[in-house]
Amino acid sequence: MTAQLLDGRALSSAMRKELDAEIAAIKAELGVTPKIAVVRAGEDPASVSYANAIQRTCELRKLAFEMHALPEEVGEAELLSRVVRLNEDPGVHGIMIQEPLPKGIRAEVITDALSPAKDIDGVHPANTGRLAQAEPVGRSAGVSDFFVPATPAGGLELLKRHGVALNGKLAVIVGRSRIVGKPMAMLLLRENATVILCHSRTADLPAICRQADILCAAVGRAKMITADWVKPGAVVVDFGVNFQNEVMVGDVDFEGVQEVASMITPVPGGTGPMTNVMLLKNLLEAARRQGQK
Amino acid sequence: MTAQLLDGRALSSAMRKELDAEIAAIKAELGVTPKIAVVRAGEDPASVSYANAIQRTCELRKLAFEMHALPEEVGEAELLSRVVRLNEDPGVHGIMIQEPLPKGIRAEVITDALSPAKDIDGVHPANTGRLAQAEPVGRSAGVSDFFVPATPAGGLELLKRHGVALNGKLAVIVGRSRIVGKPMAMLLLRENATVILCHSRTADLPAICRQADILCAAVGRAKMITADWVKPGAVVVDFGVNFQNEVMVGDVDFEGVQEVASMITPVPGGTGPMTNVMLLKNLLEAARRQGQK
Repeated sequence: MTAQLLDGRALSSAMRKELDAEIAAIKAELGVTPKIAVVRAGEDPASVSYANAIQRTCELRKLAFEMHALPEEVGEAELLSRVVRLNEDPGVHGIMIQEPLPKGIRAEVITDALSPAKDIDGVHPANTGRLAQAEPVGRSAGVSDFFVPATPAGGLELLKRHGVALNGKLAVIVGRSRIVGKPMAMLLLRENATVILCHSRTADLPAICRQADILCAAVGRAKMITADWVKPGAVVVDFGVNFQNEVMVGDVDFEGVQEVASMITPVPGGTGPMTNVMLLKNLLEAARRQGQK
Repeated sequence: MTAQLLDGRALSSAMRKELDAEIAAIKAELGVTPKIAVVRAGEDPASVSYANAIQRTCELRKLAFEMHALPEEVGEAELLSRVVRLNEDPGVHGIMIQEPLPKGIRAEVITDALSPAKDIDGVHPANTGRLAQAEPVGRSAGVSDFFVPATPAGGLELLKRHGVALNGKLAVIVGRSRIVGKPMAMLLLRENATVILCHSRTADLPAICRQADILCAAVGRAKMITADWVKPGAVVVDFGVNFQNEVMVGDVDFEGVQEVASMITPVPGGTGPMTNVMLLKNLLEAARRQGQK
């Protein structure tokens, strides 16, 4: 058996068409062009490259974009005041603060200062907390509106759009990062999956992974999860981005695991392309909420 | 074998002595008496009784206390303005808003209005989010100061003060409430346990529970967890409060399970007495943080 691909390129491409329709609707109904402001400090190459990618995406989708590129020497107070100014600017609907921040700047102070309503990357503690507090889907969430980090949101979208049953299923998440593993756990819990959160201290990780109906990898170790870790017929979601001999590979040994799993995300072309589209989806949601106040 | 008791009465009594010393230290060093304000609306008997219990505890410990008992007919706006006033009152260090709130008042609006710095019950989304984002203990937390809900904090304290090893252990939590199950999962994850979150949709719950090194019950179903669900030597923490023929019982069938477990919390006298003492601990922490600003 060869697993069905959870094809993030195809799905993100389809979703971009949906987003274009929503962008047009927002412009028509609310008379605004959704705008994202990206704040970065210093010249970390990955951060610069990601900020530029967001800018290109916005240009393609005819969304408004502001780059706030601050020097490495920017102080915490100056960065804070920039964030506060963007919070207050009614023309800006979503704000993304790129990490890493320069040494000496406390990331938590900057994140706390962000308006949760504009935090389309879902990094403010209030957004993390609302996701964690929210009731299962299908009931009233019981919390104020919130944003989910784009990467796990994209993984969930891939599962749901491919009709993967989640209710009562056993989901194993390998990796407990605040931007992928932990929010993915909360998302799957809301879908009524039973969730196991694993990490570097987990005893007998392969045996736990073999129980999974849905196996999510977000550790950052190339091809760590091999076919013998996977239950036949499991659905495998790979959030890993690693490089081996300049080739991008995931946390899952795709070649082997695709022979065991029923569905699997490729790397590249799986969860990666979904992240960008989910970030835009959050931006449009932010613009709608702010426009409807 | 009969399990060792995780005796919440004994531990909370010992901790009250520690708290008394800390109260005296705060009065001497900061020149303030820590004060809690309890806000309730309507006459829900459980809510009235809990508020009165907090008041008695404060009197015994010579802490300051304010009861804000509002009528059932109070509107959302009036309740909000009361919360804002307490946020701004420098004499009030901790605020607890009792649920249930009267119909027509959106609990999430009131909770969101609470100052996270005075939210000693750990219900504000920012506190929930900081707990969820925090790095494992022993590293820098990487988040601003936060408060943990008293009930799961008390369960963890019972485990730690009895020397229960958590690092790398498998913890199973039955129940995904926002005040017990989910924060307990995050607390145990920070202690490097592997965590399984189970709930009403979980398939083959007994088999999952039998894997647990540490089994936490927070479902609200009398004696649901029986001896055959428990691995010999497991540590069992029972957060359940149920009544059978007017007798208080937990979610765990204590009589049977104590023959299998290595340690177990009794009900009553286990996690219950810890809640009150952890709430006071949070109050003192709040007073210190506010006094040191």
